Amino acid sequence: MPGEPDIRTVTGYLKTLQDVICHSLGTLEPAAGFCVDGWEHPAGGGGVSRVLEMGSVIEKGGVNFSHVKGESLPPSASQDRPEIVGLPFEATGVSVVIHPRSPLIPTCHMNVRFFCAGTGAERAVWWFGGGYDLTPYYGFVDDCVHWHRTARDACNAFGPGVYPKLKRQCDDYFFIAHRNEPRGIGGIFFDDWNHDGFEQAFGFLRSVGDSFLPAYLPIMERRKDISWTPAQREFQAYRRGRYVEFNLVYDRGTLFGLQSGGRTESILMSLPPGVRWSYRYKAPPGSEEARLTEYFLVPRDWACLQVPDIGRSGEI
Amino acid sequence: MPGEPDIRTVTGYLKTLQDVICHSLGTLEPAAGFCVDGWEHPAGGGGVSRVLEMGSVIEKGGVNFSHVKGESLPPSASQDRPEIVGLPFEATGVSVVIHPRSPLIPTCHMNVRFFCAGTGAERAVWWFGGGYDLTPYYGFVDDCVHWHRTARDACNAFGPGVYPKLKRQCDDYFFIAHRNEPRGIGGIFFDDWNHDGFEQAFGFLRSVGDSFLPAYLPIMERRKDISWTPAQREFQAYRRGRYVEFNLVYDRGTLFGLQSGGRTESILMSLPPGVRWSYRYKAPPGSEEARLTEYFLVPRDWACLQVPDIGRSGEI
Repeated sequence: MPGEPDIRTVTGYLKTLQDVICHSLGTLEPAAGFCVDGWEHPAGGGGVSRVLEMGSVIEKGGVNFSHVKGESLPPSASQDRPEIVGLPFEATGVSVVIHPRSPLIPTCHMNVRFFCAGTGAERAVWWFGGGYDLTPYYGFVDDCVHWHRTARDACNAFGPGVYPKLKRQCDDYFFIAHRNEPRGIGGIFFDDWNHDGFEQAFGFLRSVGDSFLPAYLPIMERRKDISWTPAQREFQAYRRGRYVEFNLVYDRGTLFGLQSGGRTESILMSLPPGVRWSYRYKAPPGSEEARLTEYFLVPRDWACLQVPDIGRSGEI
Repeated sequence: MPGEPDIRTVTGYLKTLQDVICHSLGTLEPAAGFCVDGWEHPAGGGGVSRVLEMGSVIEKGGVNFSHVKGESLPPSASQDRPEIVGLPFEATGVSVVIHPRSPLIPTCHMNVRFFCAGTGAERAVWWFGGGYDLTPYYGFVDDCVHWHRTARDACNAFGPGVYPKLKRQCDDYFFIAHRNEPRGIGGIFFDDWNHDGFEQAFGFLRSVGDSFLPAYLPIMERRKDISWTPAQREFQAYRRGRYVEFNLVYDRGTLFGLQSGGRTESILMSLPPGVRWSYRYKAPPGSEEARLTEYFLVPRDWACLQVPDIGRSGEI
């Protein structure tokens, strides 16, 4: 019936999205490839993790598909619907985290997901969630502008208010309270999304999922051949510590995975390869490292900044 | 009045303990020293963090004293007393985490603390907590036996059942559920401790605090001049990831600190200097790395194993 949720159509799209992302990222890494690692969930379903490590551009990257079933929805699954906690559920999604080797290429995260809770006639409780956000170590204004304009374009067909709202939600969500610092320069974030019926909502999910590569690839291509210094690499390792702190202390996706008996290695695939914690590190005043927190890690309307977009070809 | 809690006596002991620990550890590091870093808590009180980084034996070590006051006790402070959550409180303690450079020396953690909650006549709610636990990367049976025998001796004057109970509590607490793995080989752990009045309970705290150096120093001294390989150092970085996972996902002390607006740099001083996450690492069968999880990271009655104790001098 039109308007009814169809989980097989969603999983079909998600599996194709995983293929397309792995194929495109793979073209940057002629010598390394994504390993394919299937697994089963104890309560039903399973997933396919595709992980690339030790590449020349991608130091560690994961593109994971999962489709799991559970007897009891954990509290971390839905922030707006406490009444469905404890119901049987299905969840399917694709998660991407790319940790590039170069400190000049930002780490990126993308997730698109679909939840369906209840049984029989009550199975009408469903929603989409997802988004993508960017975490630079050394900031480039045109990268930030391109990232946010691509996200804005993916949202605009669904209403002029969608991008500003999802951009704000992203800034609110990816915030490290104990550091009083955002994780990165944001992007878009949505949850509990079921506006205008299944077809329309699924169309929105596809628009977000399909815009991820056009948002990220030009940034990678533009920065991947620029050399970096050991000091920049050290700063990247230090800043990656913030990424770990956010994911393990605050991230609801990580908590949901660990609470629902998910596959630990796939959930924690998001953690960076090499990390360093130093006591009371302070970036030298006026340095590029200081500029990261002072200029880039401050919520701002990147999409409207008056700079040329680097475009999908990677050129200004 | 005898039997009444006296927080000034406790803070006096704790400050001396901090001095003694820093002095003793400092003798292992003639070229590096603990920096002294005082700070104030927004709601009252403050602390002194003493941190050593880039030493030849200690790669990163912190010995922190704090004495903070707060308007509202956070839920993470007391597991057995939900009724006092929200009361004004004072908390004082010393926390030690030592990450040695050599993968052959275990990481250690020690904490002794005193809590006092309520106001005026209701100020009678007080308790001690603390303990110490050891996290080896390459296991040595005699180190584990010495560590646990020293802990047992520190408990035995307070009753024959104390050590077995606190040893079990330590095994239960320092457990990484999502890895189905203990953090290390344990030690002792206690909380909500106010048995037999203030004087007796404070005596127990001192017995634990004073036994920490005799437990750890002989292990450091015995292992510090043994050379290690780059592969062992890599394995140490990988295993340090487990330490991070425990501290950020489960540790109540870390959560209490972050929830109560504590000083982030002092709380996260516990995180290791260099860490590496690899996807699906598997130790080669029969290797020393496999032996860590298969033999050492299994709760066992180390104090009763029939091996010679290495003793306080570091010699068998």
